[in-house]
Amino acid sequence: MDLIETGRPQLILDEERCKRNINRMASKAKKHNLQFRPHFKTHQSLEIGNWFREAGVEAITVSSVDMASYFASDGWNDITIAFPFYPGQISALTKLENTAQLRLFINKKDQISVLSENLLKPFHVIIEIDPGFGRSGVHFNEHDQIDEIINECKSNALANFHGFYIHDGRTYQCKGKKDILDHIEPVINVLNTLKKEYPDSYCIMGDTPSCSVLEDFESIDVITPGNFVFYDWMQVKIGSCTIDDVALYCQVPIAQRLVNTNKAILHCGAVHLSKDSILMNGQRCFGQAVEFTNTKIKTIDNLFINSLSQEHGIIIGNIHDMTTNSVMICPIHSCLTANLHSHYLSTDGKIIEKRILS
Amino acid sequence: MDLIETGRPQLILDEERCKRNINRMASKAKKHNLQFRPHFKTHQSLEIGNWFREAGVEAITVSSVDMASYFASDGWNDITIAFPFYPGQISALTKLENTAQLRLFINKKDQISVLSENLLKPFHVIIEIDPGFGRSGVHFNEHDQIDEIINECKSNALANFHGFYIHDGRTYQCKGKKDILDHIEPVINVLNTLKKEYPDSYCIMGDTPSCSVLEDFESIDVITPGNFVFYDWMQVKIGSCTIDDVALYCQVPIAQRLVNTNKAILHCGAVHLSKDSILMNGQRCFGQAVEFTNTKIKTIDNLFINSLSQEHGIIIGNIHDMTTNSVMICPIHSCLTANLHSHYLSTDGKIIEKRILS
Repeated sequence: MDLIETGRPQLILDEERCKRNINRMASKAKKHNLQFRPHFKTHQSLEIGNWFREAGVEAITVSSVDMASYFASDGWNDITIAFPFYPGQISALTKLENTAQLRLFINKKDQISVLSENLLKPFHVIIEIDPGFGRSGVHFNEHDQIDEIINECKSNALANFHGFYIHDGRTYQCKGKKDILDHIEPVINVLNTLKKEYPDSYCIMGDTPSCSVLEDFESIDVITPGNFVFYDWMQVKIGSCTIDDVALYCQVPIAQRLVNTNKAILHCGAVHLSKDSILMNGQRCFGQAVEFTNTKIKTIDNLFINSLSQEHGIIIGNIHDMTTNSVMICPIHSCLTANLHSHYLSTDGKIIEKRILS
Repeated sequence: MDLIETGRPQLILDEERCKRNINRMASKAKKHNLQFRPHFKTHQSLEIGNWFREAGVEAITVSSVDMASYFASDGWNDITIAFPFYPGQISALTKLENTAQLRLFINKKDQISVLSENLLKPFHVIIEIDPGFGRSGVHFNEHDQIDEIINECKSNALANFHGFYIHDGRTYQCKGKKDILDHIEPVINVLNTLKKEYPDSYCIMGDTPSCSVLEDFESIDVITPGNFVFYDWMQVKIGSCTIDDVALYCQVPIAQRLVNTNKAILHCGAVHLSKDSILMNGQRCFGQAVEFTNTKIKTIDNLFINSLSQEHGIIIGNIHDMTTNSVMICPIHSCLTANLHSHYLSTDGKIIEKRILS
């Protein structure tokens, strides 16, 4: 793409790469006989949702009731809310159940009666499993608690037990395919055991690194990755993808070149990228510079954003080799970067609307 | 205030404390015979802008041309854009100059001709001074560059030289009043020297820690703080304010109490608070729990958010002592937290609109 001169940072979406990512994951799910319920918290866009529809997707995952309502308004009617249910959500759920089948994360038996006393339609119960890392859900060894929830579903007219969900956020600290597979093995073993004990349950897993590199899904029936739709610099470093797979960039103006240094001030701050960062060779990186050729996206080695305030970024490296007035930045964490913008700009200049903070 | 049960995190604004902060800083400026051009990047709200008007404020500071346009639409007509000018801004500035007098950060002589070739009305030139820490602006020792800009203003029909601006971001790492004063001393010395050399110039400084604790502003003529309107947990730890001065909070639902631990899962993630954090006793803190009594806000010791993903937060401490369904969180960095929300909810339930990401 040609860099156009802009007076502000722009969030650039490479539609072709994005659709390639969607189709690759949809094909992988099909090949492994998995249900594909992609997480829409990354893109938060009805239009991108339609690209998933074109790839055959019929059910989705979201991270909040508000986000579920947004997508339900566009006809999505099978929605997993991948966040622990709590009673404050009831009021919004009573509206949402009119348009979408709900799949809810339930961690305690009592929550089922709270739901069935307030909802009018059947809902699906998913038990989030903590595989031992202290995150939300029920610890995988808490058989009594798991049985209580499942038994409550059996005796409740509205609640249908669906299965178990594990999100292994630890894979986001991995380096390379082998490391991801080593980390995920004990988690899959937990699911394998649950599947044996509860053969009618669905086993659900969703982290992008695992879904990107796994070739044997064992007892997993459903995958719910989200980040893969764009990928980002963290995923490149983890080994989930190559830089040429990343579909989301920030085009940022170079505001001032600092003479006698290898630095420049970018119009690009925490309000455009988010404060997520990784360490590269001991240096803090808030975004990696890349270049677009006709067919490829390539990393510009040793050129990255090293510090970030609200509206300013400082890029370090061979910035003075660049003659353009702006630089393309691959974000560290595309979910948080996308969340900060009201729309995407496609590489051919089209505005792609998305959900705005509410 | 009474905590109401909510189905999502809410950004709570304490109007009384906010107005108290505004009036305290306005009075301080008056007492020290300083012009007060507050930075509006923190609140980004026309309604809160009006509270500044009520305190006698007539001129403001912003961090982007877009933000300037937002406030100009509400009648603000003397606006400092505290970001290095770059040519990509021209198109938006040609519209903005019709409604507001512009004060622009100019780092190079050539930029003045770029501006005067495109603008139709007089504009004010501020030289941002780098006091030696490698941030944006002109290094204070670069007398030739400073003189070139000032001389160019003299010979240019539209450009009026206004003065020098220093933002010392290093005070955000300070601990206590003495530390802030020690850090700011060499910066004020730079301004004192510039004032002697260029007696007709205005000296401008704007960081919240310095403006909060300084009692002798020496050569400073104008102050432009922004964060003080809300303050936040970082400012409490720096020593700029007390917890009872902080006017912005997130009321967040407790989604799941993790049994046999001192942890709970909050519905509160990076999309509600931002990823800014500080270290407290070696532990990462993304937000501090507080309680509201009838008249006071008090810290709940040893209860804070220790980890944060997109939509989840994990709070650690004596969370099981709390019987409420939600907890009030003091954000680490109120500017970035406010930027993530479309509105504020006042403690008496009124919606206060703000600028939405564009």
